[in-house]
Amino acid sequence: MGFIAALEASIQRNNSLLCVGLDPTLDTLPAGVERSPAGLLRFNQSIIAATADLVCAYKPNVAFYEALGEEGWHVLRETVRAVPEGVPVIADAKRGDVESTAAAYAEAIFDRLGFDACTLSPYLGREAVTPFIDRPGRFAFVLCRTSNPSAPGVQDLLVEGEPLYVHIARQICQWGPPESVGLVVGATDPEGARQAAAAAPDRWLLAPGLGAQGGDLAAMAAALGPSAARALWNVSRGVSRADRSPAYAEGARAAALALRDAVNAVVIRDTRYA
Amino acid sequence: MGFIAALEASIQRNNSLLCVGLDPTLDTLPAGVERSPAGLLRFNQSIIAATADLVCAYKPNVAFYEALGEEGWHVLRETVRAVPEGVPVIADAKRGDVESTAAAYAEAIFDRLGFDACTLSPYLGREAVTPFIDRPGRFAFVLCRTSNPSAPGVQDLLVEGEPLYVHIARQICQWGPPESVGLVVGATDPEGARQAAAAAPDRWLLAPGLGAQGGDLAAMAAALGPSAARALWNVSRGVSRADRSPAYAEGARAAALALRDAVNAVVIRDTRYA
Repeated sequence: MGFIAALEASIQRNNSLLCVGLDPTLDTLPAGVERSPAGLLRFNQSIIAATADLVCAYKPNVAFYEALGEEGWHVLRETVRAVPEGVPVIADAKRGDVESTAAAYAEAIFDRLGFDACTLSPYLGREAVTPFIDRPGRFAFVLCRTSNPSAPGVQDLLVEGEPLYVHIARQICQWGPPESVGLVVGATDPEGARQAAAAAPDRWLLAPGLGAQGGDLAAMAAALGPSAARALWNVSRGVSRADRSPAYAEGARAAALALRDAVNAVVIRDTRYA
Repeated sequence: MGFIAALEASIQRNNSLLCVGLDPTLDTLPAGVERSPAGLLRFNQSIIAATADLVCAYKPNVAFYEALGEEGWHVLRETVRAVPEGVPVIADAKRGDVESTAAAYAEAIFDRLGFDACTLSPYLGREAVTPFIDRPGRFAFVLCRTSNPSAPGVQDLLVEGEPLYVHIARQICQWGPPESVGLVVGATDPEGARQAAAAAPDRWLLAPGLGAQGGDLAAMAAALGPSAARALWNVSRGVSRADRSPAYAEGARAAALALRDAVNAVVIRDTRYA
């Protein structure tokens, strides 16, 4: 099953647009979990087991595994394997290179690690994306408007009177069809997300930045309008670090349940069925 | 010793501005080399042993190692270890993420893998670079004008009448001092490289795209002017795949020698001492 078909099925099955980020570090593991790569893998497996019926997807950020060296690469592969069949897994890798190199990255992300989709950077243009979406059923979320404080310095530069990220949004739509290519739009800037979504109205969106990064769910849902129902609302620390006691898995489940319902309250009720 | 001090010393010692890319794939290994991660590591070790007195730096592209999975990560670490003390090694990784994630990537590149410098993407702004250059003696080459055919679609967008990459060049100079931050300018577009270098006149440049990608050495040197002597002229396949017979190491040495001298003929003679 392709990424979008699996995603739509998990959205329906779990009644959820919540995507859970898995970005653990050794020094933020809960009490009682061994501070080793093996402990970190068991932590991820517990978080996944506790939340897999509440999410539409998972999104590990590759950096936190690479920081552990070779063992981290193993932990990442086993983390992807721990996600139940039918729940898609997105590599947050933000790769972007020339075409032959992008093909090697696609091999790493899809063939070696087993992901279903990947985040990519637009700076090298279309070629950086092509090898990822040439594979049937795979998907790329390309960075458009990111959630970090220094994003505007580059992404808001004015091109023909409009921010760069609006031009990037339009280009991304040329690089592949809606079932292959979507956009990353940070939830910390609802107006930016609104403009990006308006420039790419039929696209799936990945919206990080809720929770620890301060994104406002209601403002973001209102800004996105109908696109809010095609957004994956990502929360990382707000789920996986919700409880750092030995009962962390129950704490993560409670947080995921509350977030799923909070997203449904503003998104599905107000826009999907409006 | 910091990256720039080591780089300047190896440029003098080896009379070379040639940077050799190490981007091997299993199916392009020479005759007689086992098509396995272990064979690939021995190939890299032979190429390094045959060329280390002819180069100013090496630049493995991380993608080609990640494509081999966990074993590739091991091969990459051992490849960096195989470079003699005093010759700096640049990770061509083109990473770019929010600050806490960029810090995890810096840990991977510098602490786990042992690199001296890294290539980065500018799309997320300054924060994506800060964790790499906050470390004394480390260096970041930030993508400005890349060498691939689809680069102009994004990088040539006009911002206040100038190409985006010129604005990026100026921003990069704000992100850190010349001993910490330089630019990637592809050798396939001399006019683009000229404009980028003019916007960042005191910066070290990494110039890929000679050889297989079709860059014109003389045109590029003329376009860069005095900046040509602060450019690392990168060739990957033109050295490591120069000879695919069992005598490949001698072939790589001959290719590196010819390229070093070709760079010196147009750069050091015409601009450094002009």
